[in-house]
Amino acid sequence: MTQMWWRDACQAPDTAAMDQARARQQQLTKPAGSLGQLEGLAVRLAGLQGCERPRLTQVAISIFAGDHGVVEEGISAYPQAVTGQMLRNFVGGGAAISVLARELGASLEVVDLGTIDPALELPGVHHLRLGAGTANFARQSAMTDAQLAAALQAGRDSALRAVDAGAQLFIGGEMGIGNTTAAAAVASVLLGCPAQELTGPGTGLDPAGVRHKAEVIERALVLHALRADAPLQALRCVGGFEIAALAGAYLACAQHGVAVLVDGFICSVAALVAAHLNPQCRAWLLFAHQGAEPGHKALLAALQAEPLLALGLRLGEGSGAALAVPLLRLACALHGQMATFAEAAVADRPA
Amino acid sequence: MTQMWWRDACQAPDTAAMDQARARQQQLTKPAGSLGQLEGLAVRLAGLQGCERPRLTQVAISIFAGDHGVVEEGISAYPQAVTGQMLRNFVGGGAAISVLARELGASLEVVDLGTIDPALELPGVHHLRLGAGTANFARQSAMTDAQLAAALQAGRDSALRAVDAGAQLFIGGEMGIGNTTAAAAVASVLLGCPAQELTGPGTGLDPAGVRHKAEVIERALVLHALRADAPLQALRCVGGFEIAALAGAYLACAQHGVAVLVDGFICSVAALVAAHLNPQCRAWLLFAHQGAEPGHKALLAALQAEPLLALGLRLGEGSGAALAVPLLRLACALHGQMATFAEAAVADRPA
Repeated sequence: MTQMWWRDACQAPDTAAMDQARARQQQLTKPAGSLGQLEGLAVRLAGLQGCERPRLTQVAISIFAGDHGVVEEGISAYPQAVTGQMLRNFVGGGAAISVLARELGASLEVVDLGTIDPALELPGVHHLRLGAGTANFARQSAMTDAQLAAALQAGRDSALRAVDAGAQLFIGGEMGIGNTTAAAAVASVLLGCPAQELTGPGTGLDPAGVRHKAEVIERALVLHALRADAPLQALRCVGGFEIAALAGAYLACAQHGVAVLVDGFICSVAALVAAHLNPQCRAWLLFAHQGAEPGHKALLAALQAEPLLALGLRLGEGSGAALAVPLLRLACALHGQMATFAEAAVADRPA
Repeated sequence: MTQMWWRDACQAPDTAAMDQARARQQQLTKPAGSLGQLEGLAVRLAGLQGCERPRLTQVAISIFAGDHGVVEEGISAYPQAVTGQMLRNFVGGGAAISVLARELGASLEVVDLGTIDPALELPGVHHLRLGAGTANFARQSAMTDAQLAAALQAGRDSALRAVDAGAQLFIGGEMGIGNTTAAAAVASVLLGCPAQELTGPGTGLDPAGVRHKAEVIERALVLHALRADAPLQALRCVGGFEIAALAGAYLACAQHGVAVLVDGFICSVAALVAAHLNPQCRAWLLFAHQGAEPGHKALLAALQAEPLLALGLRLGEGSGAALAVPLLRLACALHGQMATFAEAAVADRPA
């Protein structure tokens, strides 16, 4: 990889705006701290937007889809054909994320990085055709160097489109039958823990299926001899197109000063990769929820993330992040519109 | 009490609508169960609204305020004058719940049941003047029979106004310096557990203050010789005007077929009282969040509640319930608008 753009500096959050926002929070007509996580959220968004009273009107959602050669090993409850079928559903308006984007007034773009049907041509979908899915990482590297670079760049391109459109928040979603297997494999390498601890049922494996999935991952980690200090190598050998694109998008958002709301397990693995590639990007990542996939909790802990929701979600598509958007908006509204003790002539707590 | 309206039958959720909604959930283009708690929520709302695809456009919020004589015992971090000052802030638009109601497009009414300033007259507030706050329950009963009946009826009147306005969801909020003390006292009686386990810092007591508060409650429970099988007696002797009004409102909502979204610790105690007075009402109560007050967890467990949020909130005013409204609305939108496998020509999981 000749052009390692992801190592370029990320923007720094505006600490003066955060100080102003923190001071404002102390003056609002409520006991200090009584809005819990929403107070710190408003302060962080103030730092990321560089103003005392942040707003979240413009939300950009990009869904990254890709197929996974490792599905040959029998690690998913669904057939690979579903990836392409769901692309049609995303642009047709019937998928969960389509409904959520509409309700939130968010933009929604759909990026097909490479599915098993290379002739797939859907109006409204960006077809990038990096390959007919990744190669089966149980036997060989999932991606070539060129494919990895293109996937990272595809995510960056989405982020840059969001920047150009004036987005105040970026949400990445994913779709790809088999991608909890790739995500668990990457996370095992970067967290240095057994695949078994990070492997779950995905869309619906039974316990025997989960055990088989963990064994497939463990064998692949031995085959590729991956190390935590080589995150790009892990991403290339056992990752997926959409995971790489998400990591690229998160990194570009941090470089261009747009806050990111990270979705579930797979997106959190992409966030972990991004934070390994360029630790400065971590400041730009907000975490929407803790999902049902058992490995998500350990992943969030490793990222020191404080997710907003824990609703037992396991859909992907960016849906969990979309569901948390109203909380961010209401945190901004409370922060920006509540009266201060002085304005409302309310007695503050005696010091 | 001659007219025990709260014992009248509650409406029964529509089980046919719930069955239809459950069947629809299985056909939507997502792995079964992947929307976690939001799936059961949509099914419950279908039952409460009596239609396969529920909607939540009309939300009614009523804030009940009252002062507490037990504040004499030094159990709150704030002076009692704040109750009246906050009433002004609610109608002035600067309080948290005022901002949230505006953002949600919900109606907001403010009911003053009785504060220490009996001459308080604020445009837009219903002043009911049941008393200059309750009596100090460390020394005597908090309320007379007549005050208790009037407070329960006040809540019922609010619920009936919401019914008349076509509300699909009722949120009760509360304001009253000292009311976590009254709430913990009532909960201790009904749950049969030591006050210490249910007593917390409220708006901001230090650990010594929390210990003192628990002692004040324990002494009052001995003084009044309260029993779990006499919930009205507990409410009258150690409760508060606003807690009684909330219980009355919840019961009337259940009798008239309007779903309720219960806010934090104090509202959950009112819900517990309502469920003791008329167990049928429990089906109409949805629980918004688990708050920061330590006793809330035990209370929610006793009510077999599955709260949607856990953000460390401890503000009251109905604010935690208001923050959960978008999740209910999005659950309805997903349930009502997502495509089925057949509509979208997506392969369902092999049986």
